[in-house]
Amino acid sequence: MDSIASAIVGVTGYEGIVLARLLARHPRFRLIEVTARTYAGQTLGEALPSLTREPIGALPITEAVREAELIFVAAPHGAAGEIAAGFRREGRRVIDLSADFRLRDVAVYAQWYKRPHPAPDILPEAVYGLSELAGDALHGANLVANPGCFPTGALLALTPAVECDLLAPEVIVDAKTAVSGAGRSPTRRTHFVETSDSVTAYGVEGHRHLPEMEQELAARTSGEATQITFIPHLVPMNRGILSTCYATLRPRVTSEAVMGAYRARYAGKPFVTILDFPPETGWVRGSNQCLLSLTVDESRRRLVVVSAIDNLMKGGAGQAVQNANLMYGYDETTGLDQAGVWP
Amino acid sequence: MDSIASAIVGVTGYEGIVLARLLARHPRFRLIEVTARTYAGQTLGEALPSLTREPIGALPITEAVREAELIFVAAPHGAAGEIAAGFRREGRRVIDLSADFRLRDVAVYAQWYKRPHPAPDILPEAVYGLSELAGDALHGANLVANPGCFPTGALLALTPAVECDLLAPEVIVDAKTAVSGAGRSPTRRTHFVETSDSVTAYGVEGHRHLPEMEQELAARTSGEATQITFIPHLVPMNRGILSTCYATLRPRVTSEAVMGAYRARYAGKPFVTILDFPPETGWVRGSNQCLLSLTVDESRRRLVVVSAIDNLMKGGAGQAVQNANLMYGYDETTGLDQAGVWP
Amino acid sequence: MDSIASAIVGVTGYEGIVLARLLARHPRFRLIEVTARTYAGQTLGEALPSLTREPIGALPITEAVREAELIFVAAPHGAAGEIAAGFRREGRRVIDLSADFRLRDVAVYAQWYKRPHPAPDILPEAVYGLSELAGDALHGANLVANPGCFPTGALLALTPAVECDLLAPEVIVDAKTAVSGAGRSPTRRTHFVETSDSVTAYGVEGHRHLPEMEQELAARTSGEATQITFIPHLVPMNRGILSTCYATLRPRVTSEAVMGAYRARYAGKPFVTILDFPPETGWVRGSNQCLLSLTVDESRRRLVVVSAIDNLMKGGAGQAVQNANLMYGYDETTGLDQAGVWP
Amino acid sequence: MDSIASAIVGVTGYEGIVLARLLARHPRFRLIEVTARTYAGQTLGEALPSLTREPIGALPITEAVREAELIFVAAPHGAAGEIAAGFRREGRRVIDLSADFRLRDVAVYAQWYKRPHPAPDILPEAVYGLSELAGDALHGANLVANPGCFPTGALLALTPAVECDLLAPEVIVDAKTAVSGAGRSPTRRTHFVETSDSVTAYGVEGHRHLPEMEQELAARTSGEATQITFIPHLVPMNRGILSTCYATLRPRVTSEAVMGAYRARYAGKPFVTILDFPPETGWVRGSNQCLLSLTVDESRRRLVVVSAIDNLMKGGAGQAVQNANLMYGYDETTGLDQAGVWP
Repeated sequence: MDSIASAIVGVTGYEGIVLARLLARHPRFRLIEVTARTYAGQTLGEALPSLTREPIGALPITEAVREAELIFVAAPHGAAGEIAAGFRREGRRVIDLSADFRLRDVAVYAQWYKRPHPAPDILPEAVYGLSELAGDALHGANLVANPGCFPTGALLALTPAVECDLLAPEVIVDAKTAVSGAGRSPTRRTHFVETSDSVTAYGVEGHRHLPEMEQELAARTSGEATQITFIPHLVPMNRGILSTCYATLRPRVTSEAVMGAYRARYAGKPFVTILDFPPETGWVRGSNQCLLSLTVDESRRRLVVVSAIDNLMKGGAGQAVQNANLMYGYDETTGLDQAGVWP
Repeated sequence: MDSIASAIVGVTGYEGIVLARLLARHPRFRLIEVTARTYAGQTLGEALPSLTREPIGALPITEAVREAELIFVAAPHGAAGEIAAGFRREGRRVIDLSADFRLRDVAVYAQWYKRPHPAPDILPEAVYGLSELAGDALHGANLVANPGCFPTGALLALTPAVECDLLAPEVIVDAKTAVSGAGRSPTRRTHFVETSDSVTAYGVEGHRHLPEMEQELAARTSGEATQITFIPHLVPMNRGILSTCYATLRPRVTSEAVMGAYRARYAGKPFVTILDFPPETGWVRGSNQCLLSLTVDESRRRLVVVSAIDNLMKGGAGQAVQNANLMYGYDETTGLDQAGVWP
Repeated sequence: MDSIASAIVGVTGYEGIVLARLLARHPRFRLIEVTARTYAGQTLGEALPSLTREPIGALPITEAVREAELIFVAAPHGAAGEIAAGFRREGRRVIDLSADFRLRDVAVYAQWYKRPHPAPDILPEAVYGLSELAGDALHGANLVANPGCFPTGALLALTPAVECDLLAPEVIVDAKTAVSGAGRSPTRRTHFVETSDSVTAYGVEGHRHLPEMEQELAARTSGEATQITFIPHLVPMNRGILSTCYATLRPRVTSEAVMGAYRARYAGKPFVTILDFPPETGWVRGSNQCLLSLTVDESRRRLVVVSAIDNLMKGGAGQAVQNANLMYGYDETTGLDQAGVWP
Repeated sequence: MDSIASAIVGVTGYEGIVLARLLARHPRFRLIEVTARTYAGQTLGEALPSLTREPIGALPITEAVREAELIFVAAPHGAAGEIAAGFRREGRRVIDLSADFRLRDVAVYAQWYKRPHPAPDILPEAVYGLSELAGDALHGANLVANPGCFPTGALLALTPAVECDLLAPEVIVDAKTAVSGAGRSPTRRTHFVETSDSVTAYGVEGHRHLPEMEQELAARTSGEATQITFIPHLVPMNRGILSTCYATLRPRVTSEAVMGAYRARYAGKPFVTILDFPPETGWVRGSNQCLLSLTVDESRRRLVVVSAIDNLMKGGAGQAVQNANLMYGYDETTGLDQAGVWP
């Protein structure tokens, strides 16, 4: 069977590591190149002992990609956009895990990321890769903007209700994220002692994932644009995002209507599962699943949707592989079919 | 200086342990008796090695209280009410840490706790002991209902705005609690492996602390009764509750009005501190402080209040001691003046 | 390709869960039956939400095994031996994950497990399944005693040196285990709050895994039997055992001799890797690898070997699958080739 | 009552923070100055929100100490020695929490710390401040070398047996430390995600606390100098060190002799407690206690001593305050009498 020569830019960040682990055993993508500035010269197994024994453990870490046809860019925003643009000029296909191609409007990008957009010329060809919601747009795409981890959890939780116009326009997303979401660079926030046995809110004045959520919900509503209040919280765990979404139902929306909207939307979607009880993020540790639960209080017209994802899988590298599968027309579960590692 | 002979019923639960630690060094309360059914016959230091060297380490654990004038009841609800009623009949003063005297209406109690109220005769004399909000009612009280941990965090976050009628009546409380809130009995929920590296919502169909919150807010509003959507979440940490409260401001309420209401309400309150940034629960570990932060978005008429407490201190045993101080007319900080143990 | 009809007895314990996850995708073993007393009647996916979407998620949990040819018994010791004996009488093949067939001597068993051996008649046919050390004995075996988690880590760390007679007979094994090693039953020891942010020694008067270690080292030494001082420690983590083994080198044993012994012993062993630096248990989370590091101080004649395994994989369910592969003559890595899920 | 004007150099590191908390309520030491280069200009409460409400919360953080008579130096080694020397030249008294005055021999210092000793002129006046072992030397001392955290745990565990010549000269110290022992600077080692759910050995080629342990044991033995094999391990917890010490008893040493040696040595020592079962580090969280357990196997002539301390209290700031008490002739428990905050 033919396989696609692939590369990872930024393989030693958490997203890059998880990508490498997934591609090491993917039957259709052949990982041939990996880059990382600070680790160049080592092999992947030396830099990342958990990959020592992998088939790809001997892959040398380099500073640049030469051969690959499909490139996963796991670099910081700004830099990522420039790198992706370079690859596109050479005709390579790119899945970008940064924020650089998620916002359609360069002015909004500039406002939230405090810099001009690094590659406005190729922005129009980017497909926003929330796999379950993207429809056919991913098939054949050359540039995929892999969604943010928070938007993935929130959009999977809210989109069916918004698409069916079941909700009043004001929605609250209270998200609880693992520390790996803050990246691998050591900071006060990621110091074990500062984070352990504690929980905090952050980004209360506005988090960069907010405009991404609002953009995508707006694109899917016929009514009034949804206004989201989004507060992320840092929780002492390695992986996972739990998003608790609070909405007000429009008058006379029944519990059945809500359940029906979600069941219909996610019928046949292998990575979204609706549970009868609230999900725990531990249940999706290491898997690409999104678990959802719905609670409707008709008398108070209140809907609470809880979604659980692994921020590095469905919220990052796993969804990137899912998107790569869809780009090339493979089954979306290819190379992603393992259950979580719970416990 | 005279001291009050005190006892703890249920000293080997988490609330009881923290109470014992606080009373061991309290200058006005003298701990003379401690009870716990399963540990009777051991000394306090044997049952709880962290107290081995305390002055109270040699105190024998017994099955019944004989002498004490003031009794802290840290027993399960139902049992606690009966125990408290017995003490009241003997003329002793009681601070009850269970739920049995928090709800004013026995019908509401029966609905949420699935049992008839254990002591309706003495319920009317109970004072709801959210210390900062109780005014003078605690002074001289004979029976104090120590508030639930979640209501403590939520009410301190919401009451100033509700009292000043700044909010639309629908409010969301998204709380994140440490595992010690689930008590010391081993269960699946409290198993390390099930809880570690994971976060989940629970009680989505209605948590027993909800009617307590609504009762207390209703008592403080002149307008429409506040309706709370309350979802607690279990976070892998030992101690702490972070409550993120979302409310809609009434038209034309300014940021200054909000800040002013909170500053005025908590002026001179030593255990409530308003920060300019979101609090972390780790900062109050072991202290009786409640840290608050306020975020106002005037354009969207949105208020977000975050409160952080130690669920076993301000959310339990610490507040019980604060209430005991107020009952006897002592300074409310007596025996509670230590900072948290961060890190 | 033919596949072997397999079953798991005790599927809802941690070992059982991990077995189910591994067998769900194993190309040669077909999981057809799972049992668990308390969950009987539910499907596997209902009982274990992390397996909801697995192909085996719909498998009903029953009380007894009917059809399977190969049975993994993950039951408590005592019960396990009786269950295994029943299957053997019916001619089925068994991999027993309990302690019941590990000790060759029923008197030693009775001393340490405080009960008569449950199945002395079939004990002689049991093969001790430390895969890398068992040689050809596993091929064709009908009853495999899957090693304890601590013996697996310690024996992989010590056997090469003992076999080459490099060590004085007194050895110290200081092991640090995750909480999942204590099983899924909720106890004080496994309560999150009692275990979190703390570390302790236990079993200081003698742990049941000690005679198993000494038996296996004695079987591999030509010289004086090794005497082990073994102290396990409980560490607040989900998975992993780190074994730090301290030994005194015989006179004139060089660093090269030590390294040579280990390299030779584990040449061609896909699941043992010798690192140049101390391993972290996180690096093997979810994988069947054992990582080793060796430190030799020739002047003080001191050898320190550190081994890291995932207690539920190489220390349990993973090794059980490896043993099943070897029983049937398959490549030992079949179905076990995934890297750990670090981070 | 008179009080001693005191200062902390380096108040925003973990040792400094704990010192500040302790001195805030110490009846004999008055904290008048605190320094920290990066936080200068802020108040202590602004820099460390857990101290916001403390009496010392308003203390400005400065760059230099001007007035204080007694100075706690919590700076990195090298810098600390220079700072301490400056203060000594001005006639101030110093408790140095760095390693700079612990080793008596500047050549050994240079070998392990890879730099010349920063203040050899004042080194001779330094008293090694392991409070329970220092005898009267601390009374009136002008310069105290506060011991390392690992040596504190190991020396309290081993000294009684060494002083009574009960042990063969080869001893193993396997220590398990919390992450706060690595300091507050963010590094890969202290990153939550790298450390959480994992355990590892480090410093296997030799840790700087080893010569300190051997120096102090040598000073207390009449026989052959003890040779220690010391391996520290990093455990995912905030605070605590558990030291498991393995020794061989000399012939005919009985269990009674061992117990007698320890009981005699620590009689009347308020901060050392001998338990009948292994201690948990959680039990000393926030307290200055050292908990010990002793296990003797006469037949194998094996002694295992386990000690538990809070690395920031008895292993650092707490012992520094204890030493300050002893310097000035106060009761050693002054300001240190609180129990741990377990749970």
